[in-house]
Amino acid sequence: MEDLFQRYIDKLSHLDTKAMYENDFLLTWEKTDQELAAVFAVADALRYLRENNISAKIFDSGLGVSLFRDNSTRTRFSFSSACNLLGLEVQDLDEGKSQIAHGETVRETANMISFMADVIGIRDDMYIGKGNTYMREVSQSVRQGYKDGVLEQIPVLVNLQCDIDHPTQCMADMLHIIHQFGGVENLKGKKIAMTWAYSPSYGKPLSVPQGIIGLMTRFGMDVVLAHPKGYEVMPEVEEVASKQALGSGGSFAKTNSIAEAFTDADIVYPKSWAPFHAMAQRTELYGAGNTEGIMALEKELLAHNAGHKDWCCTEELMKTTKDGNALYLHCLPADINGISCQEGEVAASVFDCYRTPLYKQASFKPYVIAAMIFLAKCQNPQGTLQNLFKRGTQRWLK
Amino acid sequence: MEDLFQRYIDKLSHLDTKAMYENDFLLTWEKTDQELAAVFAVADALRYLRENNISAKIFDSGLGVSLFRDNSTRTRFSFSSACNLLGLEVQDLDEGKSQIAHGETVRETANMISFMADVIGIRDDMYIGKGNTYMREVSQSVRQGYKDGVLEQIPVLVNLQCDIDHPTQCMADMLHIIHQFGGVENLKGKKIAMTWAYSPSYGKPLSVPQGIIGLMTRFGMDVVLAHPKGYEVMPEVEEVASKQALGSGGSFAKTNSIAEAFTDADIVYPKSWAPFHAMAQRTELYGAGNTEGIMALEKELLAHNAGHKDWCCTEELMKTTKDGNALYLHCLPADINGISCQEGEVAASVFDCYRTPLYKQASFKPYVIAAMIFLAKCQNPQGTLQNLFKRGTQRWLK
Amino acid sequence: MEDLFQRYIDKLSHLDTKAMYENDFLLTWEKTDQELAAVFAVADALRYLRENNISAKIFDSGLGVSLFRDNSTRTRFSFSSACNLLGLEVQDLDEGKSQIAHGETVRETANMISFMADVIGIRDDMYIGKGNTYMREVSQSVRQGYKDGVLEQIPVLVNLQCDIDHPTQCMADMLHIIHQFGGVENLKGKKIAMTWAYSPSYGKPLSVPQGIIGLMTRFGMDVVLAHPKGYEVMPEVEEVASKQALGSGGSFAKTNSIAEAFTDADIVYPKSWAPFHAMAQRTELYGAGNTEGIMALEKELLAHNAGHKDWCCTEELMKTTKDGNALYLHCLPADINGISCQEGEVAASVFDCYRTPLYKQASFKPYVIAAMIFLAKCQNPQGTLQNLFKRGTQRWLK
Repeated sequence: MEDLFQRYIDKLSHLDTKAMYENDFLLTWEKTDQELAAVFAVADALRYLRENNISAKIFDSGLGVSLFRDNSTRTRFSFSSACNLLGLEVQDLDEGKSQIAHGETVRETANMISFMADVIGIRDDMYIGKGNTYMREVSQSVRQGYKDGVLEQIPVLVNLQCDIDHPTQCMADMLHIIHQFGGVENLKGKKIAMTWAYSPSYGKPLSVPQGIIGLMTRFGMDVVLAHPKGYEVMPEVEEVASKQALGSGGSFAKTNSIAEAFTDADIVYPKSWAPFHAMAQRTELYGAGNTEGIMALEKELLAHNAGHKDWCCTEELMKTTKDGNALYLHCLPADINGISCQEGEVAASVFDCYRTPLYKQASFKPYVIAAMIFLAKCQNPQGTLQNLFKRGTQRWLK
Repeated sequence: MEDLFQRYIDKLSHLDTKAMYENDFLLTWEKTDQELAAVFAVADALRYLRENNISAKIFDSGLGVSLFRDNSTRTRFSFSSACNLLGLEVQDLDEGKSQIAHGETVRETANMISFMADVIGIRDDMYIGKGNTYMREVSQSVRQGYKDGVLEQIPVLVNLQCDIDHPTQCMADMLHIIHQFGGVENLKGKKIAMTWAYSPSYGKPLSVPQGIIGLMTRFGMDVVLAHPKGYEVMPEVEEVASKQALGSGGSFAKTNSIAEAFTDADIVYPKSWAPFHAMAQRTELYGAGNTEGIMALEKELLAHNAGHKDWCCTEELMKTTKDGNALYLHCLPADINGISCQEGEVAASVFDCYRTPLYKQASFKPYVIAAMIFLAKCQNPQGTLQNLFKRGTQRWLK
Repeated sequence: MEDLFQRYIDKLSHLDTKAMYENDFLLTWEKTDQELAAVFAVADALRYLRENNISAKIFDSGLGVSLFRDNSTRTRFSFSSACNLLGLEVQDLDEGKSQIAHGETVRETANMISFMADVIGIRDDMYIGKGNTYMREVSQSVRQGYKDGVLEQIPVLVNLQCDIDHPTQCMADMLHIIHQFGGVENLKGKKIAMTWAYSPSYGKPLSVPQGIIGLMTRFGMDVVLAHPKGYEVMPEVEEVASKQALGSGGSFAKTNSIAEAFTDADIVYPKSWAPFHAMAQRTELYGAGNTEGIMALEKELLAHNAGHKDWCCTEELMKTTKDGNALYLHCLPADINGISCQEGEVAASVFDCYRTPLYKQASFKPYVIAAMIFLAKCQNPQGTLQNLFKRGTQRWLK
């Protein structure tokens, strides 16, 4: 057992994580390969500690501030769990769902909530061009506050989902893949299909498909993005994906055929999203207070969607994957045929087969978030992990 | 002082609590007499520790998830207090008041919120046939998740009130009675009257009267259930009560006269509730989305209620109890004549006399909840209590 | 470094804080000069501990109950931060914005939420004659509960803003002033102008101007209260201010000219508020459920306000202050011209110059609240501070 923990420490000690200290985690492609590897190693190490009933508290007190611009059970609990694991108490900042403030208000609020905040987790995925921008504004504000002597520590930001990326989700997905395939070294040449799927609901964010192609192209995999015409994602992220694929010895391809994407795939990730240009249009309509325009757009999009009900992860499609046995991924909750809707993203029989791996996939998220915080808060992460192990405080007096 | 604590430990060491470990607390009548005695002993021991400024934290980190399907100040604070006492941080799951989800959704949500949950407290008392069923569904889901390696610990369930029982309330009530009568051994032959009382409001849950007759019949007491015709409780629970009374050497009787119930009673518990069949009907109407039907039912029930304004705990009635001095119980808040309503469950002069014992009655609830969690989380509860005592961490550096 | 901490301890050991133990903090003028000095010393000491990464937890477990009768981000986070710093977990009591309950309900609720509450923080500033009264009712209720053996500890109250005073804000403001002027001994003869300022919004509470004149008159300062005719504050507080000014060797003056108030001022605090008599009238209308009356009053007040748009903290006015360089204060958020409104309390250019000191001003609030709790919970505060220092538990394993 101890050998396993030591292996995480060893891995970590070969990685350069200096730039992560007191830094935010906003987009995976802003991080080096070594930094991503460090997140995986720390997440595994923290999970090891908890499984072995060893406290991972690096904080005696301190706040983790959460700011969600949308209802969220899963992300809220993942963030809470991560904070609690490390010893931070969560304090929610409830700002409602309205389009977010800027300038003076952001600067001021960011500082007012941060006097004892060690981390701020933000989920803001509803408006194209807004969420990630807002996070950077908050980050700059609190860094200035620290420089000015207003704050006694730098509250680091963790992007819990924005308009561009969903790093905590995608990193958890990747850690799940690594565990399923027995190591990151086994991923070279594997084919992963990130495909659109039909959903009767409207306007699902783009952050998952974008995050997936923006992350998975770094591991030498053959990444295929599939969607019907008109469901394009942000072109900037496609560029990132192409460049990275080239660098990692993998590939990045696009297709408008779900059948093509599934063929011989090792991993499939069929999930609905709204077209990028429609989401951008919606942001503008929303900004202009054009309610009628929004309703018209919604109607149009639902009609579009309805033309692609065949984009569903069926047993037939699954049979065409590598050995008929691809790893099926979803960020949950999925639109399951005959369960959560009449027709949706996935056949109930497929979902049934993958329930346990899907839940395991989700189980990595609290640890990935905790690892991001840990690396931003520990100057010598491997040393701190070793100290936690030596300290050996029981998490629970069984 | 220490003698008292030692006595709790001794009591506990003679009780078989093995089956409580990693198990839920859903209905008192699913627990053995020894298990109930263990809850009382641990509750007293935990209170002793707190009164003597000794920390009872058995968790260094971990979450207590609360799920309330109705506004609740008292239960919320009792659960929070219990979790905090043991070292768990509360995270609320807000699902609104709508009729609850089933199947896939429950299974999935239950797992998604439980990655670091050691306990889940649920209050769901609004729909007959639903609340307790839902709790079992959640329990099965997380147990499966643990078995499948999704969760690293089994989150145990505590029923914070369902359609059938209100175990944390009734166990707190019982612990209060035990303290008032100087020991459980003094309860044999004591008469307790669980009686309906008039309230101008509609649809109060059945869980308290059901919980009381389902618990108090186990201690050799003479339990009388009194209500006007038409205000029957669930027949299944009455059967449980009858069987248990027989086994404990006590009795279980029903009457439609509050006067008869109060005569010579040692303990009275006058409280309003809605008829079982009406609550069942309401559940059906609600399920069918029949708003008009619900309003008609409500009107009918209020009219029924109004015919029984004489079911009030007056000074005159109290005089007919044993030595005119019965112990008056209520789960609070009570409908007090001339205070919280014009005519209600109890005369203001009666309530005034019993305010302090009523508050004390309520004060046992956090400890009873904590004891239920403690017994589900400690394999050797007496050993852990002794360790806490020896550890002697101060709760508060006065 | 250690010298500085020792100086706080020394200061504290010369102050009589006995009466603060297990006592509330409701109005600054109920406290002695030594008691206020103790709050400043403890706040500085706690900030020192945190800046030096030393845990200030005096509680291993326990609850801090917060009761806000209005949305509040700043005060909520300040209270949470203070509780977290000392080791208490915050539990919110959400009672909505309705006029508050009295009598039985207050007594009961106060006890039901307090079984494990060490402190209760209340913000209730909306109705004249109500907020402070309510706090005293809660305090009496829980003290009675403690006496009756219902509660195992006395939950002390901290006034987080009422209809009369805003002690946590004003004490934080004062601590900021002390730091800016290099010590409380340098404040004698300094002129502070608490002036009304125009705001396009309606009904801002009186607690800040009242709290400021009720506190600042105790330090030998020349306190000037300036407002247009008709914007009087509570006469009782003016009396307190006059009496205190006399006692401290300072002065308290009133004027209807903002220019006069600013002239040669060392400190200016321009801020909008509603007239006392109008707030009292509003309370009555609200009590009578007179919605039309409230709307008419609001209209009238806004019209009044609009006649005084020249009451704005401009660069010109700032130039008339001592050396053109007075310390500008605000409790935030301010109504900034051209930023948060067209015309408001302060010119954007003035606000820009003072942003950092304004944020610093706000940063004292969590420490002031923590100091109030600390002094109410530690019988020997200097001893406990020394113990925390010696214990030297790291707040954060960097």
